[in-house]
Amino acid sequence: MTDFSRTRALFHIPAGTIYLDGNSLGPLPIAAKERVARMMAEEWGGQLIKGWNGAGWFMQPRTIGNRIGKLIGAPEGTVVMGDTLSIKVHQALASALELNPERKVVLSDSGNFPSDLYIAQGLLKSLGRGHVLKVVEPEEVGAAIDESVAVLMLTEVDYRTGRLHDMKALTGRAHAAGALAVWDLAHSAGALPIDVTAAAADFAVGCTYKYLNGGPGAPAFIYVAPRHLETARPVLSGWLGHAAPFAFDLDYRPGAGIDRMRCGTPPVIALAALDAALDAWEGVDMADVRRQSIRLCDLFIREVEARCADLTLNSPRDGAARGSQVSFRHPEGYAIMQALIARGVIGDFRAPDAIRFGFTPLYIGEAEVMGAVEILADIMTKRLWDKAEFKRKAAVT
Amino acid sequence: MTDFSRTRALFHIPAGTIYLDGNSLGPLPIAAKERVARMMAEEWGGQLIKGWNGAGWFMQPRTIGNRIGKLIGAPEGTVVMGDTLSIKVHQALASALELNPERKVVLSDSGNFPSDLYIAQGLLKSLGRGHVLKVVEPEEVGAAIDESVAVLMLTEVDYRTGRLHDMKALTGRAHAAGALAVWDLAHSAGALPIDVTAAAADFAVGCTYKYLNGGPGAPAFIYVAPRHLETARPVLSGWLGHAAPFAFDLDYRPGAGIDRMRCGTPPVIALAALDAALDAWEGVDMADVRRQSIRLCDLFIREVEARCADLTLNSPRDGAARGSQVSFRHPEGYAIMQALIARGVIGDFRAPDAIRFGFTPLYIGEAEVMGAVEILADIMTKRLWDKAEFKRKAAVT
Repeated sequence: MTDFSRTRALFHIPAGTIYLDGNSLGPLPIAAKERVARMMAEEWGGQLIKGWNGAGWFMQPRTIGNRIGKLIGAPEGTVVMGDTLSIKVHQALASALELNPERKVVLSDSGNFPSDLYIAQGLLKSLGRGHVLKVVEPEEVGAAIDESVAVLMLTEVDYRTGRLHDMKALTGRAHAAGALAVWDLAHSAGALPIDVTAAAADFAVGCTYKYLNGGPGAPAFIYVAPRHLETARPVLSGWLGHAAPFAFDLDYRPGAGIDRMRCGTPPVIALAALDAALDAWEGVDMADVRRQSIRLCDLFIREVEARCADLTLNSPRDGAARGSQVSFRHPEGYAIMQALIARGVIGDFRAPDAIRFGFTPLYIGEAEVMGAVEILADIMTKRLWDKAEFKRKAAVT
Repeated sequence: MTDFSRTRALFHIPAGTIYLDGNSLGPLPIAAKERVARMMAEEWGGQLIKGWNGAGWFMQPRTIGNRIGKLIGAPEGTVVMGDTLSIKVHQALASALELNPERKVVLSDSGNFPSDLYIAQGLLKSLGRGHVLKVVEPEEVGAAIDESVAVLMLTEVDYRTGRLHDMKALTGRAHAAGALAVWDLAHSAGALPIDVTAAAADFAVGCTYKYLNGGPGAPAFIYVAPRHLETARPVLSGWLGHAAPFAFDLDYRPGAGIDRMRCGTPPVIALAALDAALDAWEGVDMADVRRQSIRLCDLFIREVEARCADLTLNSPRDGAARGSQVSFRHPEGYAIMQALIARGVIGDFRAPDAIRFGFTPLYIGEAEVMGAVEILADIMTKRLWDKAEFKRKAAVT
């Protein structure tokens, strides 16, 4: 049984704050602060250029990739870190399309994170070969998979509602139709059990600043199924994906296996923070996380619906169909969230009208859920959100 | 007159080390260590998700881009930070090719950093429209610019020899032939005066971990000439380059100006380190840096040639034709560099046979040059490099 009182002590949560936004940016792991300080002073400061070998910087994208791999059911040597999630989406989609060259349709849904769709649009335009991005409603995806589809590109958990796709079933349907499947695990990794191997995903990508607590703008990851490792062409063919980066050949030759998905120089400081953040998962059973996450989300839904009649549930009611987040709709959602934040309950707002809350058992328990409901109910019943100061939009909402 | 004793005090150089590898990885600025510690504890730890507005994280790629802009002659709003240099090369080259759609040749040289060539090869293969990468010798570039060339893609300072291209003259020739020019400033930014405006460069890219001391894997920058800002299509069209990222539209619309070259979530911890590192340039006159850099390099060449007959100069003898680094050739270059490092003189090795030294006036002076020569001469005259331990190659050379 996972001891969540132990994991909770690993994080810094400011006094007076109920932090329900770990689905957007995880809080600071105390070990990450210490590790980065050590990295700066002893590794960069003390070892200088020698840190590439001496402090293991060069291998970090693979060693940390293997740690992420354990959380998503990927074997050793199939996950590597680097860049941002948007870049990883580009890599995965571009490689997948080349593995299915006769077909022209990329199938996605309106619940995919917009950046994934934007990256696909940009890529398909660059290719200039008549590819089409087909975007259907989430519940129509299964029926839309046919023999025109080259690549099915989906995010497992909807960033707005928390609605969970069945990765294994949809991947199976894609394969049966001769398509490849690219999965974005941004809202899944660290939130629920994932098994990319059992699901037979072709590619998977994700970020590490949400449930994995790697810090703002932490590096992304890419998984390539073993069966594609030696055939997927790295379209962003940077020198660290070369078979022999330090030979400085003029011609590119892809590295062996997952190394080819490396591109530029790895972000060492950020990787140090992430590496320390991942220590929190030692001794954690993801099945326990999932059980507790559903329990907390269920409790939140029940209490909010009992006490805030004006809020409309925007997430699946069935825990099994939901990730680790819950959202409610209200025309004044933006102002309501600002009023909550002013009272120390931090969630976020997603246009046009959703207030969104993430439940992260590593550092959130029943007391925080009940405390948040209390404040939300107070704000709703007294209309405390109805102030000009709460309606002014900031750059980042 | 720039006070280099002031700038020297801003950096941490380990005792007993003569650091001549700032052209590969700049040393730790003391302010960066402090700034990152504060960022971790107060911004991430204290502000959590609110840091995007409250701590200015969201705007960092632009505010820091403007600081870099001042060092390369770029006006406000034309430089933005993010990703790695390899990714920025992809962005710049892909956009430039679309601005010159009738032509098929990318012209570069064998002195370009291999990653730039690899990225070009990967991109051209993806495009699948018969583009060709033509790689000539550095001294043949001018003559090779003709009306078949779509984009001239060069690195201003050769990473091996320090040989300096004439950015303004070659860009002028490219424009006269109807080509665009993409410049990689990796070994120029912070090393010598640059004026992308006067040179009329179309795009410029660079990294910030060398002469700008941003730390291992620090974020890259991209400059887009004002005349292309509203027409260059961002091919890596991520959400933060969208005109309204937080509207979460399903369709991509490029942001205004340089914002469109943003892609994924910015690397906040790394940007904090870089921002602090850039403080070192306040009050520094780049003309003074250039004068001092040439003086130090000249001194090094003169002394090494006088004392180490076996080493062959691999850099231009004329300071005006050279960046801020010097290399020498020797068949046992790798072992010689290891022997130097064992004695506390840190430079690096570049295959097949070059030992390379960077001279960075912000923290290197005459005493370090003479100290390094003393040790190098000792190693060469006594053949101290001729040991098995110095011939074993590490992962990163």
